[in-house]
Amino acid sequence: MINRLALIGLGLIGGSLSLALKERGLVGEVVGYSRQLQTRLRARELGLIDRPVDSAAEAVRGADVVFIATPVQAMASVFAEIGPELDPGALITDGGSVKGNVVAAAKLSLSPAQWGQFVPGHPIAGTERSGPDAAFATLFVDHRVILTPISENAPEMVTRAVDLWQSVGAIVEQMDVQHHDHVLAATSHLPHLAAFGLVSALSRLEERYEVFRYAAGGFRDFSRIASSDPQMWRDICVANRDELLPMLDHYLVELHRLRQLIEASDSAGVEKLFADAKAVRDALYRPATSQS
Amino acid sequence: MINRLALIGLGLIGGSLSLALKERGLVGEVVGYSRQLQTRLRARELGLIDRPVDSAAEAVRGADVVFIATPVQAMASVFAEIGPELDPGALITDGGSVKGNVVAAAKLSLSPAQWGQFVPGHPIAGTERSGPDAAFATLFVDHRVILTPISENAPEMVTRAVDLWQSVGAIVEQMDVQHHDHVLAATSHLPHLAAFGLVSALSRLEERYEVFRYAAGGFRDFSRIASSDPQMWRDICVANRDELLPMLDHYLVELHRLRQLIEASDSAGVEKLFADAKAVRDALYRPATSQS
Ligand SMILES: NC(=O)c1ccc[n+]([C@@H]2O[C@H](COP(=O)([O-])OP(=O)(O)OC[C@H]3O[C@@H](n4cnc5c(N)ncnc54)[C@H](OP(=O)(O)O)[C@@H]3O)[C@@H](O)[C@H]2O)c1
Ligand SMILES: NC(=O)c1ccc[n+]([C@@H]2O[C@H](COP(=O)([O-])OP(=O)(O)OC[C@H]3O[C@@H](n4cnc5c(N)ncnc54)[C@H](OP(=O)(O)O)[C@@H]3O)[C@@H](O)[C@H]2O)c1
Repeated sequence: MINRLALIGLGLIGGSLSLALKERGLVGEVVGYSRQLQTRLRARELGLIDRPVDSAAEAVRGADVVFIATPVQAMASVFAEIGPELDPGALITDGGSVKGNVVAAAKLSLSPAQWGQFVPGHPIAGTERSGPDAAFATLFVDHRVILTPISENAPEMVTRAVDLWQSVGAIVEQMDVQHHDHVLAATSHLPHLAAFGLVSALSRLEERYEVFRYAAGGFRDFSRIASSDPQMWRDICVANRDELLPMLDHYLVELHRLRQLIEASDSAGVEKLFADAKAVRDALYRPATSQS
Repeated sequence: MINRLALIGLGLIGGSLSLALKERGLVGEVVGYSRQLQTRLRARELGLIDRPVDSAAEAVRGADVVFIATPVQAMASVFAEIGPELDPGALITDGGSVKGNVVAAAKLSLSPAQWGQFVPGHPIAGTERSGPDAAFATLFVDHRVILTPISENAPEMVTRAVDLWQSVGAIVEQMDVQHHDHVLAATSHLPHLAAFGLVSALSRLEERYEVFRYAAGGFRDFSRIASSDPQMWRDICVANRDELLPMLDHYLVELHRLRQLIEASDSAGVEKLFADAKAVRDALYRPATSQS
């Protein structure tokens, strides 16, 4: 049971955690801060928070749990602001999609005594929608949440972070900060780059209006993630640059390989590459039943 | 009303056209040929065809409409086989995803007198599933079908092809063969390459098992088209090589542009590219309501 939750960043992730806790009666009061006044007011209107406040510092005062859910590059200034106001017994955790730079920011702005309180986390759940209106209480149910504890963490703080996510139905796993950033570069960040890049490339074609008229269901699914929030994804790509660029290069090598096979009209080679990819993809998901 | 329809290739596209015509009582008998005996038998079992036959030549004998729905690179030999048996009044049309090489194959294997009977077509409808079991009667309803008539076509043949598709609920458009192949390279063939390539690249990582465990909803949607039939897509990529490779190069340039922006930590530049892509994508489709 949380007495007072401080929520910093009142969008899809922050709002959904709050709704999930409230629905289960697991939190007393939720105090919320977000950059824009209108977001704070909307978050209260939607019942995501009980009390909007004017700064992150004010939000954390007296809170026993602090959850930070802003875009990752904004977290450095959040840590700097809340550091002096944190209760020494408070659990601090976050939902950022990149962990290395968030941990670095926390260590820079929090006192070494506070490092032990910060348990970094990342829920592997989301949609391409954002803002307070996108939040819903069941977002995390049966989804993985990766925690990347740091060596300074007090074991009790890690346990509290695990309990927090399990209490809203998530499956909690733990891994290294760097390993997290590597795996997510492959599975999430690179696909987003590929989709944003493809839509961007097509929109540079002179005949783009004509081209997009003939986009079918396959394109709709493929490009859905290019509808994601540009600011959030800008932050992720820049924050995880060191893992993302080698992964992008790996993809570029593969596209060049495919290019050569097609240029040589090597039907067998192209088919093998496609068939191997299909086998991997089909093994990941049960056969689709929907007609898309 | 079609008296006898010859169906060559008994998978998703051919089977769906037949089911749609049958359901509406628009066809007398459907005679079907497909490479494998088991496919022919299954197609009869499912009611896609009334009578399986042992060759494409046998299928077209006495047919007033011939529909070819094999992978595109198989069409050359189909034309060669059926040429001598075609009724001079028969409409010949196809559902191949590439048109340039299909027209070339038709001109090579049909007699010039028969060129006028062949009206090339491409339904912009499909799923990632294939084979006779994937067929369903409503596949083409409210979907576009592009016809790419050739100069030799008798106007009556074009009209009959238009009527055929409209009678099953499709929206028929006409364009140039080459323009078709250019537009579809952008909208359909390149996205498939990008998705197959990405899954393939990830599956080459040593840590692939670990990586794929953390694939979330965005990856599922993005990679759905990498579950498509490898043989069909091999054929499309090789057949449309001349339009596809420049389009792939255009994509590679865009990915390199993104790479540079990220390498320079140019947050504003990355955000602008993402925001422009999102705006284009959002304008194409109504806001998604599903949580994926
Ligand atoms: N969406 C996903 O699929 C997903 C999944 C897992 C993790 N994440 C991570 O979760 C975090 C939040 O993502 P989200 O999807 O919830 O994004 P979101 O819906 O856009 O919400 C982010 C919120 O942060 C606020 N904000 C932005 N800059 C701020 C600042 N400097 N100080 C205080 N508040 C600020 C925004 O409110 P204003 O209107 O006030 O600017 C917005 O309400 C990100 O770090 C993201 O990487 C996202
Ligand atoms: N799927 C889509 O999204 C889509 C959309 C628009 C257009 N198209 C085009 O439509 C055509 C058919 O695609 P589809 O999705 O229906 O594929 P499909 O479900 O795999 O069906 C193709 C059929 O052709 C048969 N076949 C293969 N090689 C043959 C040959 N040499 N002679 C005779 N039959 C042969 C296969 O049967 P066996 O078991 O006998 O080999 C199979 O039943 C392709 O040209 C494709 O480009 C597909």
